[in-house]
Amino acid sequence: MSVERTLHHFPLDPASRQARLCLAEKRLPFEEVVVRYWEQPKEFMALNPSGVTPVLVERSGGKTVVICEARAILEHLEEQFPDHDLLGVEPADRAEARRLMQWFDRKFDNEVNAYLLHEKLEKRLLKLGAPDLYNMRQGRDALRVHLGVMEKLLQARDWLAGRRLSLADFAGAAHISILDYFGDVPWRDVPSVKTWYMKVKSRPAFRSLLTDRWPGLAPAAHYDDLDF
Amino acid sequence: MSVERTLHHFPLDPASRQARLCLAEKRLPFEEVVVRYWEQPKEFMALNPSGVTPVLVERSGGKTVVICEARAILEHLEEQFPDHDLLGVEPADRAEARRLMQWFDRKFDNEVNAYLLHEKLEKRLLKLGAPDLYNMRQGRDALRVHLGVMEKLLQARDWLAGRRLSLADFAGAAHISILDYFGDVPWRDVPSVKTWYMKVKSRPAFRSLLTDRWPGLAPAAHYDDLDF
Repeated sequence: MSVERTLHHFPLDPASRQARLCLAEKRLPFEEVVVRYWEQPKEFMALNPSGVTPVLVERSGGKTVVICEARAILEHLEEQFPDHDLLGVEPADRAEARRLMQWFDRKFDNEVNAYLLHEKLEKRLLKLGAPDLYNMRQGRDALRVHLGVMEKLLQARDWLAGRRLSLADFAGAAHISILDYFGDVPWRDVPSVKTWYMKVKSRPAFRSLLTDRWPGLAPAAHYDDLDF
Repeated sequence: MSVERTLHHFPLDPASRQARLCLAEKRLPFEEVVVRYWEQPKEFMALNPSGVTPVLVERSGGKTVVICEARAILEHLEEQFPDHDLLGVEPADRAEARRLMQWFDRKFDNEVNAYLLHEKLEKRLLKLGAPDLYNMRQGRDALRVHLGVMEKLLQARDWLAGRRLSLADFAGAAHISILDYFGDVPWRDVPSVKTWYMKVKSRPAFRSLLTDRWPGLAPAAHYDDLDF
């Protein structure tokens, strides 16, 4: 039975990007609905009362399944399409991929995005005034620490969770790519992270992310350059 | 091959409690190591560099698997013991259970725990001084909103995610039980939540949580009472 998929997402949201990358990597076609989540649109709040993007809606044979938020969407797609797996097969590999997914979605989000992305993006969307320079510096300092952790991992590994591409790479690349949109990644200081990001960025699944633009927020000049 | 399990956890941590409930519900014996996570013990930081509890270590036949943080542990146990499943079988049921898990671990945590639990528990552990009354009120107000959402769900459903006990119930009960330890749940206002909590609290898997005590922090008188 054919499944019709619709992803409700916001282009510059790291969680939404993880869902887009996973769908594209598994070659699952989907319709897109861009959600201005900060305006809490009624139709979207009815799908996910927490108001958080992304939400995947699957329709097949009169049945509708609503899957709210990145983690549930990624686990669902892994369960439904195990042949093209992105978590690994061994429990240890799956645990390592999930550890890093959690690292980015919780720790990175709290320590970097809550400052840097809040000041540069959310304040703009929510019309909360000019960015606070102290917060931006705090976010940039935390970003350096996180990039240091990634650099150390990637000096020893081909991909973040080990020998194979996994959802951990999509989590990391989704977060990093948004900060790169704003020109905030000090690439020269983290050569292994740069090499890894070039690999992820070159995948067909990544292409649509590089064409994302949001009115009034121009990306850094190198944002869509595969050879940055 | 027999597996030796050790759970590194903190008794009054909602994430740790979810792992304990899942292990006990699936009748998997495990050793416990209590982690004073706020002191960032070296051995624990080596297991999970993010410093977040819980961590499950599985040893069998010379092989060791380290599984960091609640979400990875719960998904791992579901994958390894699908016969006694706690997420449901249908994609829609699994998505609903995961939606609510995320709701508690992210939204509830940010809106309630970050205020109420921070003031009552973390400040105590970290010796950060007396609780801030304004923050406590903010946390209690948010708790009322969340309990209202639960009450509405539980008026229509036997369990949080639907007709069967799921990890969503363990997520909800883990969070609520910590606030109940501190006597902060206004039970009289939410009769359906109370009935549900009595059901969860009566399960054998819940027993060990009711014996938890932390030095200097006495629980509310009704905390371990099944008929509160």
